[in-house]
This record gives sequence, structure tokens and C-alpha cells, in this order.
Amino acid sequence: MKKTALSETAIFNDTAAKIFVVHESPYFKIINFNFKAGQKLPLHSHATEGQLSILVLSGEGEFLADNGKTMPAKPGDVLVSDIAEPHGVAAKTDMRILVTIAPPI
Amino acid sequence: MKKTALSETAIFNDTAAKIFVVHESPYFKIINFNFKAGQKLPLHSHATEGQLSILVLSGEGEFLADNGKTMPAKPGDVLVSDIAEPHGVAAKTDMRILVTIAPPI
Repeated sequence: MKKTALSETAIFNDTAAKIFVVHESPYFKIINFNFKAGQKLPLHSHATEGQLSILVLSGEGEFLADNGKTMPAKPGDVLVSDIAEPHGVAAKTDMRILVTIAPPI
Repeated sequence: MKKTALSETAIFNDTAAKIFVVHESPYFKIINFNFKAGQKLPLHSHATEGQLSILVLSGEGEFLADNGKTMPAKPGDVLVSDIAEPHGVAAKTDMRILVTIAPPI
């Protein structure tokens, strides 16, 4: 049993998204990404089984999907995607997300 | 790919915790619990492999652990526990949490 306070990882980086691995086990990987406005997790996918969730903790932006499709991403929004399906996030404001990948890749 | 807005599930119930299943797949199950002050997810465990995370979305309370141990639970706190390890949550204020269970039980 392990507790992590995301209030202590609210650190941003001017040159690239700041990434904190909250947890990694054979069951899932939990990662906190902090984006400055304009930064992104580019559209990508991995040819592996599994799914991931992306929860918006704070700030606003867009979820990125295949074929240039986007969806608004606001605090409390949860996106679930297959790992093999193209997915990404673009930050319009400073933005924090929590990604959970099961099983981890 | 599926988006859920937790802003739309901020519903509380006077008699018991309000539970919304956000997602369920062979990879993980994601559940939003909304507690009124004083409600709880009692200490429990399941004899199965896997882990779960509990993220506090809003409100405050305590994470419950074995032998009466407790830890403060505040917004942005993430608890990771084996599914087989006793775990629970007690709400001191109205409180919302997001639980991710991998693999689902």
C-alpha cells in the first residue's frame, strides 16, 4: 500500500511535458503528465493489447484521436482508449493529467 | 475510445455511497464513488491477484488499512493497494473518488 500526493508533483517544464511515474507493477502503470500551455502528448499508439485511461486533473485542452479528430478535455473528463488506438493530448492551458495503462507497456 | 465527464456524475445519495461504473473491460474497471460526509467504503479485500488505485477527486477523508491504520485522503492523493490487501475509504466531508482495478474483479 502506497500513497502519492499529486499536490507535490505540480511541477512544469518550459521545454517539454514533465512526467512523474506514480506507480508501475505487472498490473498497471500510473503516470502524471504536467503540460505547459501548448505542450502535448502527440498522437501515438502501441501495437499491444490493453487499454489506458486519461483523467484530466486540472487545466484544459483536447484529447487527440485518429484522423485529426479532437474532443474537449476538461477537469474530470476521463478518456478510455485501446493502447493500439491512436491517442494523445494537447494542452490549451497549463494542464495536468493522470494516465493509467493496463497492462503496463 | 470513450469519454466520460465526471462533472456529470457528481450525484450523492443520503443512504449509501453513489456508485458509477465509468468503464469495465478485461483490462481494468474504473468506478466513481461519491460519498456524503460520514459514508464509507468499508475495509475489505478480495483473494485475487491484481492492484487498485484510489484517487481523491474532491473532498477529504481517510484511507483505511489493516489493523485500524488510517492515512489522510485529500484531493490529488493516490493510494495503490493490492486487491488482496485490506483497503477502504471513509469520508469526512462530501467526497468523490475514482477507483481503478486491474485486472477487474
